[in-house]
Amino acid sequence: MKLYYSQTSPFVRKVLVAAHELGLADRIEKLPASAHPVDRDRALVARNPLGQVPTLVTDDGDVLYDSRVICEYLSELADGEVVPSDGEARWRALVDQSLADGILDAAVITRYEMAARPEALRWSDWIAGQLDKVACGLAELERRAPDFGDRIDVGTIAYGCALGYLDVRFASLAWRDGHPNTAAWFEWFGGRDSMVETRPPAG
Amino acid sequence: MKLYYSQTSPFVRKVLVAAHELGLADRIEKLPASAHPVDRDRALVARNPLGQVPTLVTDDGDVLYDSRVICEYLSELADGEVVPSDGEARWRALVDQSLADGILDAAVITRYEMAARPEALRWSDWIAGQLDKVACGLAELERRAPDFGDRIDVGTIAYGCALGYLDVRFASLAWRDGHPNTAAWFEWFGGRDSMVETRPPAG
Repeated sequence: MKLYYSQTSPFVRKVLVAAHELGLADRIEKLPASAHPVDRDRALVARNPLGQVPTLVTDDGDVLYDSRVICEYLSELADGEVVPSDGEARWRALVDQSLADGILDAAVITRYEMAARPEALRWSDWIAGQLDKVACGLAELERRAPDFGDRIDVGTIAYGCALGYLDVRFASLAWRDGHPNTAAWFEWFGGRDSMVETRPPAG
Repeated sequence: MKLYYSQTSPFVRKVLVAAHELGLADRIEKLPASAHPVDRDRALVARNPLGQVPTLVTDDGDVLYDSRVICEYLSELADGEVVPSDGEARWRALVDQSLADGILDAAVITRYEMAARPEALRWSDWIAGQLDKVACGLAELERRAPDFGDRIDVGTIAYGCALGYLDVRFASLAWRDGHPNTAAWFEWFGGRDSMVETRPPAG
């Protein structure tokens, strides 16, 4: 399989962590790509018109995206339970993934606003709305974390990648303050081989 | 079931079209909500910290989001195939849904830029990047449309809702020009009861 990826994309990291947990990491060849929303990567766009990473090309040549679809594909390929196949565990994991992806979307869009957009065109109300989404998401995560136990699924993987992204891009948020349950859980989860092997470069 | 919804959200429409196609529309009570990214709806945030519609409260009191998770839940509840349960049909529908959702995300974010953000803070390069995503997505849809046949699944439903959104919010794009396959398909699909019943208000 081939994966269009970037080292800093938290959505790519979700896929790589899932692959590690499923024992599939060695079967994935990584193709570096840029997923910049303004300077769009034409080689990537030719495979995925959205121009987004992660994009997976399967051994059969099928092109799969986005991260949710790829995680589910890998889970099925490995006959694993990273995406639980049914019942309560499935809905719980999928909603947790939605919440984590939503936190990430808000953080990434804030990052575009603060780092890519010309300074004179930034809109403080927009940033405030997105960061409120992050804050409300973290508050809910804090309520849920005590029940995570040793769950390794797309929900907890997505939370781990969201928190890892905040650590790199929004260190000043100091999310551990006021979220002790989440911090304790991430202390364990973030130390898993799958997370250590996929850690993004600092800064 | 109760669904937090807004009349104009294309992601809500996906869920409502799926419910109609699955024969579940009468079982869903609609709760009006505002999903504005800056003026966040606190009643909705209390159920879903992302403050986004659609958000579903099941008869058991579980809260499900986002539209993908809800569509899958409804499909399973009705023992239907709006989300095909396995095989090639599943991956095809899920990737189609990702592409359609990506077109919609880009269109919605362009709408925020052009209608919600103060005019002096708009960034033309950003709008151009998002509209290029829409254009590349439509070009891929045009390639795929001849193979749709009579498929009614989350992929085709999502395409239908994306095209319907473009008709209401981006009429000036005149997407039918240069996309005859898509236009012919939508002529049929858009006339289904599920689409007619969920048509957003004009303007």
